[in-house]
Amino acid sequence: MAEPIRIQADPGGPAARGATRGRVGSGVASLPLHEARVDFPRLRADIEALSAIGRQSDRSISRRAFSPADMQARAWLRERIEDAGLEAHQDGAANLHARLGWDGSPSVMVGSHIDTVPSGGPLDGALGVLVGLECLRRLRELDYPLKHPLESVAFSDEEGRFGGLLGSQAIAGQLSPGKLHKARDLEGVSLVEAMAAHGLDAMDALQARRRPESLLAYLELHIEQGPVLERRGATIGVVEAITGLFKWEIRMLGTPNHAGTTPMDMRNDAFTGVVEFAAALPRLLDENGSPQSRATIGRVELQPGSANTVPGAAICSLDVRDPDPQILRELAEAMRRSLSAIARRHGLMFEFEVLSQIEPVACDPGLVDRIDAAAESLDYRKLRMPSGAVHDAQIMAKLTRVGMIFVPSLQGMSHSAAEWTAWEDIEAGANVALRVLAELACAIHTPAS
Amino acid sequence: MAEPIRIQADPGGPAARGATRGRVGSGVASLPLHEARVDFPRLRADIEALSAIGRQSDRSISRRAFSPADMQARAWLRERIEDAGLEAHQDGAANLHARLGWDGSPSVMVGSHIDTVPSGGPLDGALGVLVGLECLRRLRELDYPLKHPLESVAFSDEEGRFGGLLGSQAIAGQLSPGKLHKARDLEGVSLVEAMAAHGLDAMDALQARRRPESLLAYLELHIEQGPVLERRGATIGVVEAITGLFKWEIRMLGTPNHAGTTPMDMRNDAFTGVVEFAAALPRLLDENGSPQSRATIGRVELQPGSANTVPGAAICSLDVRDPDPQILRELAEAMRRSLSAIARRHGLMFEFEVLSQIEPVACDPGLVDRIDAAAESLDYRKLRMPSGAVHDAQIMAKLTRVGMIFVPSLQGMSHSAAEWTAWEDIEAGANVALRVLAELACAIHTPAS
Repeated sequence: MAEPIRIQADPGGPAARGATRGRVGSGVASLPLHEARVDFPRLRADIEALSAIGRQSDRSISRRAFSPADMQARAWLRERIEDAGLEAHQDGAANLHARLGWDGSPSVMVGSHIDTVPSGGPLDGALGVLVGLECLRRLRELDYPLKHPLESVAFSDEEGRFGGLLGSQAIAGQLSPGKLHKARDLEGVSLVEAMAAHGLDAMDALQARRRPESLLAYLELHIEQGPVLERRGATIGVVEAITGLFKWEIRMLGTPNHAGTTPMDMRNDAFTGVVEFAAALPRLLDENGSPQSRATIGRVELQPGSANTVPGAAICSLDVRDPDPQILRELAEAMRRSLSAIARRHGLMFEFEVLSQIEPVACDPGLVDRIDAAAESLDYRKLRMPSGAVHDAQIMAKLTRVGMIFVPSLQGMSHSAAEWTAWEDIEAGANVALRVLAELACAIHTPAS
Repeated sequence: MAEPIRIQADPGGPAARGATRGRVGSGVASLPLHEARVDFPRLRADIEALSAIGRQSDRSISRRAFSPADMQARAWLRERIEDAGLEAHQDGAANLHARLGWDGSPSVMVGSHIDTVPSGGPLDGALGVLVGLECLRRLRELDYPLKHPLESVAFSDEEGRFGGLLGSQAIAGQLSPGKLHKARDLEGVSLVEAMAAHGLDAMDALQARRRPESLLAYLELHIEQGPVLERRGATIGVVEAITGLFKWEIRMLGTPNHAGTTPMDMRNDAFTGVVEFAAALPRLLDENGSPQSRATIGRVELQPGSANTVPGAAICSLDVRDPDPQILRELAEAMRRSLSAIARRHGLMFEFEVLSQIEPVACDPGLVDRIDAAAESLDYRKLRMPSGAVHDAQIMAKLTRVGMIFVPSLQGMSHSAAEWTAWEDIEAGANVALRVLAELACAIHTPAS
């Protein structure tokens, strides 16, 4: 974790450190910060243009990392960066940066990703990248003096064609040559091959590593991908923490038997173990979790899996999340005990494998307050909440303080053609991001101050 | 159903109707019936010889209907029939009969099948066929005068490569040209093609139909395929009824959502519907079923089926069995109501499709008593019980009175290489069958009577 450097809104005046960097733009100088807004029609045009790249006949969008559509989107983005008079920079992990006022001193970063899941939607990732770009573009036009360089970034392979969070892990120094060599997609194509097809060397991802001192903060705007903001009638989600999770594969083992010839009291039905555990989940969350806890069984397989055979094995996934690491540990322990007791009670064998485990990440309290205050002053209804999904911000938190802004997802939908956010909510989110970035990076003289 | 013709053990004396058929064998004449036993070493040799046909490297046995192994087994069986001095007869459905004292008058039939499931065991079906053959062979040797002709039969495709119970359905007149033309195995091979490959015309199966008047009774010996006899320490299962069943495919429909971003109280998790229903099954059986009722969920599929997605659809099989048709109807109604209430409570949509429905079949009370008495007089521990599995006897009950003898399955195992029955239990079952067939078909003069 980075040490707690104070980043404050500049009190104004030329004595501010960053002010020495001078002005980089040439636009609507000296607009007071409280009047600064993104150029929404321009942002909207960008969203529409990017979502046409990789669009399928069912209106879903497929831009898997390093696919032709992803490469086309990268080329399009580079043009937008250059058209805006920003400096384009591609690092070793093929993360595409736009830079404003770059001088090698510690920067404020904003970003997300433009790759999608197969049959994804137009906003997951892409919105954060385009808002980041729009903010830099707008700050350049507003011509505020910079205290710190600004960079927006589109991370490579967040969605996981080759494992996920590749670009942010590269920057956070979490990759190794072995990991890069082993990475393959579900069709067996290696990351090395997929990158080489576009003249990229996967091993260069190791060069993308950044030192904690090179970053002051990382901000990410993202669609919520859940129903909370919409149902609570809020426009801005002020993310306080990104939940951690543990994902298990649970195996209950009984005895396969003929469904007709085996009396109920002579069975070792493996499915009964899963059923009893699934039925106990609400109680386990109530007793050991928080209101933010989630537990999901998303996959079940019975073996042998025929209608007329009592299941000899029942295999299920378990995905448990909470923003508090201590609560997550207590949930894991409670679930292990519950599974063990259920297996014993039903005469089953039970085993589980930890498929993944991710520690929760707290957002920087200063950034949380700043996002909250920006939404407040812009008069948007806001809600403090955790992020239930994993984001690049979770990785970036290893390097620097992070903040996240959520905007509502229509009906909580994501990863599908139905993924959408109302234009006015997108505009609101972008304006909050603009305000926060300006406060972090610019030496602003407002008439009011 | 056949009208209740009385078949009784002959009181003895040449006046008995069947006695006019005279003696057909030339062996150990006038052995008293209570001393009559099968030739067990010969039966055992047959079981060992037949189980070598279609045996796989894992010791399981694959003799799918009309496969090369099935055809080899048929040829082997025909030789055994002819070697025994019995008349071999193949009907239009390729059912292979052995006949003793055949004169076109109504006969007593004993049988089962020699086809297997893929990777099946040595006894399911085969034991009943070989015991039938041994009984006819032995009765010929014992040279009891016949009241009625005897026939043993090996039915075609009981196990279902082309739908199952083909041979018995042919005899019961339950086939149609359309049904025969449509029948295909899982690889897409049609019954017509599979039979034609061995010079057989599938349409001839329509000629195999028998009139109810042509049969006096059908007896089948079969392995239990369940654990009850073994656990209760009994040697002979006296089958009172063959359970009926209904098989449903149940679909619970909710909303797929992100496992991390969707709070527990904003979910429409389709799996919760299946879990609550599965947990309610014991209560539903207690309240609406009998001690013989069984309910099994053998297959579950969650959609989209990824660990980090709340299931939008949960599809499961439901297999419910009971020997009483009224109880079966009540169970179906109770389960429908339960599913409907659960779906309503969880805000899910619910639908089900009836995959199959088979009416229970009561065994003939006279035959049940006769099997029971035979086991009693031979001093074998017996248990009255239903058959939980479907058998050719279920189809034959449409034509004539049926009786079934069960022998214990080691650990209840079946349809696998582990399928086995102790030799002494096989011998016991065969002796009960011999006694019952002799009583049904022979005009026996016992010194005792």
